[in-house]
Order: sequence, then structure tokens, then C-alpha cells
Amino acid sequence: MSKVIYPKVALIGLGLIASSISHAIRRAGLAAEITGFARSAETREIARGIGLCDQVYDTAADAARGADLVILCVPVGAMGQVAADIAPVLKPGATVSDVGSVKQAVIEAVGPHIPQGVHFIPAHPMAGTEHSGPRSGFAELFDNRWCLLVPVEGSEDAAVERMQSLWVGMGAKVEVMEPEHHDLVCAVTSHAPHLIAYTMVGVADDLRRVTDYEVIQFSAAGFRDFTRIAASDPTMWRDVFMNNKEATLEILGRFTEELFSLQRAIRTGDGDHLFDYFTRTRAIRRGIVEAGQDTDAPDFGRGGGG
Amino acid sequence: MSKVIYPKVALIGLGLIASSISHAIRRAGLAAEITGFARSAETREIARGIGLCDQVYDTAADAARGADLVILCVPVGAMGQVAADIAPVLKPGATVSDVGSVKQAVIEAVGPHIPQGVHFIPAHPMAGTEHSGPRSGFAELFDNRWCLLVPVEGSEDAAVERMQSLWVGMGAKVEVMEPEHHDLVCAVTSHAPHLIAYTMVGVADDLRRVTDYEVIQFSAAGFRDFTRIAASDPTMWRDVFMNNKEATLEILGRFTEELFSLQRAIRTGDGDHLFDYFTRTRAIRRGIVEAGQDTDAPDFGRGGGG
Repeated sequence: MSKVIYPKVALIGLGLIASSISHAIRRAGLAAEITGFARSAETREIARGIGLCDQVYDTAADAARGADLVILCVPVGAMGQVAADIAPVLKPGATVSDVGSVKQAVIEAVGPHIPQGVHFIPAHPMAGTEHSGPRSGFAELFDNRWCLLVPVEGSEDAAVERMQSLWVGMGAKVEVMEPEHHDLVCAVTSHAPHLIAYTMVGVADDLRRVTDYEVIQFSAAGFRDFTRIAASDPTMWRDVFMNNKEATLEILGRFTEELFSLQRAIRTGDGDHLFDYFTRTRAIRRGIVEAGQDTDAPDFGRGGGG
Repeated sequence: MSKVIYPKVALIGLGLIASSISHAIRRAGLAAEITGFARSAETREIARGIGLCDQVYDTAADAARGADLVILCVPVGAMGQVAADIAPVLKPGATVSDVGSVKQAVIEAVGPHIPQGVHFIPAHPMAGTEHSGPRSGFAELFDNRWCLLVPVEGSEDAAVERMQSLWVGMGAKVEVMEPEHHDLVCAVTSHAPHLIAYTMVGVADDLRRVTDYEVIQFSAAGFRDFTRIAASDPTMWRDVFMNNKEATLEILGRFTEELFSLQRAIRTGDGDHLFDYFTRTRAIRRGIVEAGQDTDAPDFGRGGGG
């Protein structure tokens, strides 16, 4: 009757995603033991203090030794090094996964370190908040959100299905995708929007004629949503852009092209062009609400005091 | 003991903002009578059906006749015409106001029609949802949100204070601002972000390699927030951009400049530049949460199923 899917799970990196995984695994009893490692001694200390894992180790290898599943929850740029660190201790039949927001670069960096007889099933849970660190996790983070599995060539079906069961057990919906396609979809739906939000918040910060007080005090819907996006973890996002360079630059190129055409419509007073464009974008929003990916509650589901 | 501030209030235009004003005025008993007018017969019919006003008239002049306060709640581009329509029936000592998102253009369009002895106190309530129409309003829309008053030169203090009392009575916080400064602040905090969000959603829609299903299904935080912004009323936003042209184009120019520098950092692999930029933008977000303009609840205050 046990729901245990992987008896021993090792979490390498103990930030928002890893700590949420720990809570979600425990909520559903999906593992018998959870070990953890974080590079920073302070993070390890906090994790021990709040009992985030059954055991927090001082090296990645010690945490991964004997684990049935090792999940790499570090920034994309650090994945290759931790994979090298844990490779010697991985037990035959174990699975290595990750939670990185780009997949081709992770597969290139981690893949070569995976020993014969160990499964490698990259994953990308599409969920987050503006907070980071071991205290920021919560069991509900993945509930009803997507987790994309991006198995490498030649993966065994049974190993992929086992990983899928874990994520479903943590509350997520799962879909399998090719690495290159994954990176393009994410460039559109997440990476380019993040860079754009960062940029707009930076512009506001630069504008000395609009005092900080006003930018903050009068931040209405538009800008307020941008600041929320732009508050995400700087290290994680630096690595995303450094590692999904081509797709992100392609989308940004198209974005700039479109933006220039709208700017010209404003400059020349072409109201029809603007109206038609805005009408078209409204439809895609309706689709998202209907697909259950967001609420259309007034004030966007925030409390009245928001 | 009465809380009535303006005995008779006329609402010209009956969309989201006007219908919310009606509910908010009634909630606090700030008027004895509310009249209304909408250009579309269908809107007038709906408004009558749901009892949105005490009386809905077929012309703006009939609605405004004898009113102590007339609030123009039409798109910015329509303000001049309705001001001309109601000017002949305005009673001495009455106040005309509006709810437009730009102020210099409204003052230019409406100001010349205001008769001697009538107060003109433009206003801009900074609140909204992605819905429009007479059914979309609700009494709480303005609670704890800002309403900027932008009185024209030579306004009487008593008339400004009376208008301020109305907005405070509807739950808003009020600040007085100069027209030009208002338009710049709003270009930064609202207008440019809206155009950028519209653009990004348009780009996603164009990308045939990323199917509609995927853009909608996997729309994570970044893109999902953009679609919400980009679902706003197309007519209203067309008019905003046509009427706050200079400030919006100035901000977009700066935005493009910054975006190019970040794009170059991605292309050349300058991770430090990206990290520093993202760290700086995170701080402004903290300020917004501390200023009480948003929540930092997980999943941004949406329900767990969001």
C-alpha cells in the first residue's frame, strides 16, 4: 500500500524548487528518505534547522550516495560541475534528473557524466515565486502546474514513467517534450518575457524625473506585474539567458521588430493598427483563462488591499 | 448626518470604471441620485436591466442636466465630443471630471468646452481589471488604490477638496499632480508596460512553430502576466497611446536602448552584466511590496489552482 516511488531521494541544491519538492514528496509519502546538499554552509544550516531533509550533507557526493533518485536543483550554469561531483557514487539503476529552465544546455553539460546503467531524465517544473532559499518552499507549489519531462535519446520507458509518477504525485501535470522544442517554447512563454520585464523595471529605476516614490507608489497593473517577474532569482535567470541564448535572441529579435511597428503606429497616429493588434492579443488571453492556467477574478485574484 | 457629497451625479459612459463608481457611490451613500448615459443602445439597455443608475438617458445632455457632478467615463479620444454635448446644460457651480488615463490631452480636449462658473477637475483612478462593460463593475475596485487628481490652473480649493472627499469615500487614496508630470509617471508605470505586453503576446501568437496549444498550456509566470495586461480594453488603450504619444515614445526609446544592451550581454556571454542588472531590479520590487501596492504571497495571491 506504500506510495513510495523512489525509496531514497537526494536533492542537490536547496532553494525554492528543492525545498518545495521536499515538502511535496513528504505530503504524499513518495519517498522513504530525503537527503540534501547545498553549496553554501549557511543554506545547509538553515535546512538542518527547519528539518527540510532527513539528512543534509556537506558534499553533493555524500548526499547522492546510494540514492534511487538524484535531482539537481542548482542554477543551470552549475549543473555540469555537480554532475561530475556525484557521478562516481551513483548506484546502478538510479535516476538523475534536474529542474533547470533550459534543457539542451543541461543535457550537454550533465549527459557526459552519467555512468552506464544510470537513467538521466531531465525535467522542468513550470512553477515559481519571487522568493528563493530553503525557507521559501511549500508543498503546493507544483499543484496543477506543468512539469515538462525531456528524456534523452534511448531512455527506458519504465524509467520515464516512474519519474512521471513522482511529479504527478507531487501534484503536477506532466508532458514529454523534445529538448530543442522545449527551449523554444520556454523562450516565448517565459525567458523573453522575463528579460523584457527586467528591462522595463530597469528603465523606471533610471528615470530620475520620476522619483522612486512615484514609481513605487503609483505602480498600477502593468508595471506592478513587471516588477513581480523582475524580482526572480538573479543567478538562476543569468544562467537561463546564458544557456538558452539562441532561442531567446530569436524571440527578442521578433519582439523588437513588432515593437517598432507599434511605436511607428503611435508616432504616425495609426489608431486602427493599434486597435486591431490589441483586439488580437485579447483573444489569446481568453484562451489562457479557459485553459485553466489563470484566474480572471477581479484584481487578478489578489486581495482587495493589493 | 448625510454622507452625500454631490446630490446628483451623472456618469457619461457606462463601462468598467463608471459601473464601479456607481456601486462605490451607493455603497457609501455619497450621492442621492445617479444618472447615466452610454453611446451604445445595448449598453444602455443592460445598465437599465441591472439598475446600474437611477435613470439611464438616451443622450449625454439629458443625463448631465442639473447634475452637481458629471464624470466623463469614455475613452480619451471621445472626451472632447461628450464635453461639447453636455456643455450647454451644465448648471452653475457644477463640477466636471473624468477618469482618463492621460491628462494633458483630456484637458486640451475638454477644457475649452467648460462654461464659466463650472469647475473642471480631471481625475485618474489607477485601478482596473481585464474586463469591460456595465456588468464588470464592482464597489471594491477603488479600495486602497490611488486616484490622481489633476486640477487645471485656477481651480478653487473647495471644489478640489470636494472631489477628493468623493474618491476617499469610494475607498481610494488621493494625490494631486501636475498634468505633464502625471502623463510621464503613467507612461513609465502603465502605458509603456502595456504596449510591451501587447507586443510580446503578439509575437507569441505569430510564432507558428510554437503552437497555440503550447503557448497557452505552458504559459508560466512571465507570459501569463503579460497576457493579462494585454487583455485590457483595446479602444481605451488605443486612445491612451494616441494621446500620450510623446511620453510613451520617450520611455519606449529608453526601453529599447536598455533591451539592446541586455541582448548584447546575452550574445557576448557577459553574465556579470546580467546578474548586476537583475539584482538591481529585484530591489525595486521589494519597495513595491513594502509600499503595500502588491502581495508577495506564493503564486502571487492566486488560488492554488492558478
